[in-house]
Amino acid sequence: MKGYVQVYTGNGKGKTTAALGLALRATGAGLKVFFIQFMKGMESSEQVALEKLGDLITLKRYGAPSFIMDVPSQEDIASAYEGLAEAKQAMLSGKYQVIVLDEANVAVQYNLFSVEILLDLMRAKPDDVELIITGRNAHQMIIEAADLVTEMKEIKHYYQKGIPARIGIEK
Amino acid sequence: MKGYVQVYTGNGKGKTTAALGLALRATGAGLKVFFIQFMKGMESSEQVALEKLGDLITLKRYGAPSFIMDVPSQEDIASAYEGLAEAKQAMLSGKYQVIVLDEANVAVQYNLFSVEILLDLMRAKPDDVELIITGRNAHQMIIEAADLVTEMKEIKHYYQKGIPARIGIEK
Repeated sequence: MKGYVQVYTGNGKGKTTAALGLALRATGAGLKVFFIQFMKGMESSEQVALEKLGDLITLKRYGAPSFIMDVPSQEDIASAYEGLAEAKQAMLSGKYQVIVLDEANVAVQYNLFSVEILLDLMRAKPDDVELIITGRNAHQMIIEAADLVTEMKEIKHYYQKGIPARIGIEK
Repeated sequence: MKGYVQVYTGNGKGKTTAALGLALRATGAGLKVFFIQFMKGMESSEQVALEKLGDLITLKRYGAPSFIMDVPSQEDIASAYEGLAEAKQAMLSGKYQVIVLDEANVAVQYNLFSVEILLDLMRAKPDDVELIITGRNAHQMIIEAADLVTEMKEIKHYYQKGIPARIGIEK
């Protein structure tokens, strides 16, 4: 199967959620998924659910916690680079049909790694692998290099009313 | 937990996929999900994957196949009404914390049921239930009545290059 590069960006809710849904659907078809999160801890409810999908999913976490919104530490940068290298290795291994780089756009925005290194990974994608990149504020070069780009646009959000993230719904 | 009404609409990819991701995350937290599709057959890869999530998910299909784009038959209308009635019953039963009405916006658009009957269901939502409504072209009254609305906006799509839906990725 020919694979493409999909990008989910924008300020609205649903980017990581869509990546989770993609992973779910892919495993339902027997595809193997490598799912890496760069900017936040895997929420326990996501982890528990993905684990139910069994051996078809490999889950990793690298990079910085999402609450880091200023200058990343050397440790965060090193972790993100390590994650990206591991994702690239997984992508080239022939073992996975779907690679998810969750919040990679945010990792670029906060200089955990450069847009060039992410572009290099995109260009190295084998023809039969689907690559999913999520996160708000996707770099223009990433948008240009992608095959599919969806902007999740916030029209209305109850967070605007000051409601915290809820277990099983947002996290 | 206080529940809200979330709407995913727009012409971009990721609406049903986000609903699948929401269902996945919810079951990971032990929440029970009633997932009903109105405008298309549950793709087998989605069904297989959701079934792995076990007893926490109840899956239903009603309404018309998605390829029906003109006047719905009486049978399609009856099926959609039956589905909406069953979803309402599930929502009021106290057994489910999350109700997904997948493609309900499209069902309204194609007159499988009226926007008023969908609004009635929204208004009847118990306080502790999360209600998710997906589908392009959400009616303005649905947008106004919802707590959260995300527009999935197509920026770029490889379908534009004439590629058919792929098993495990789109279906």
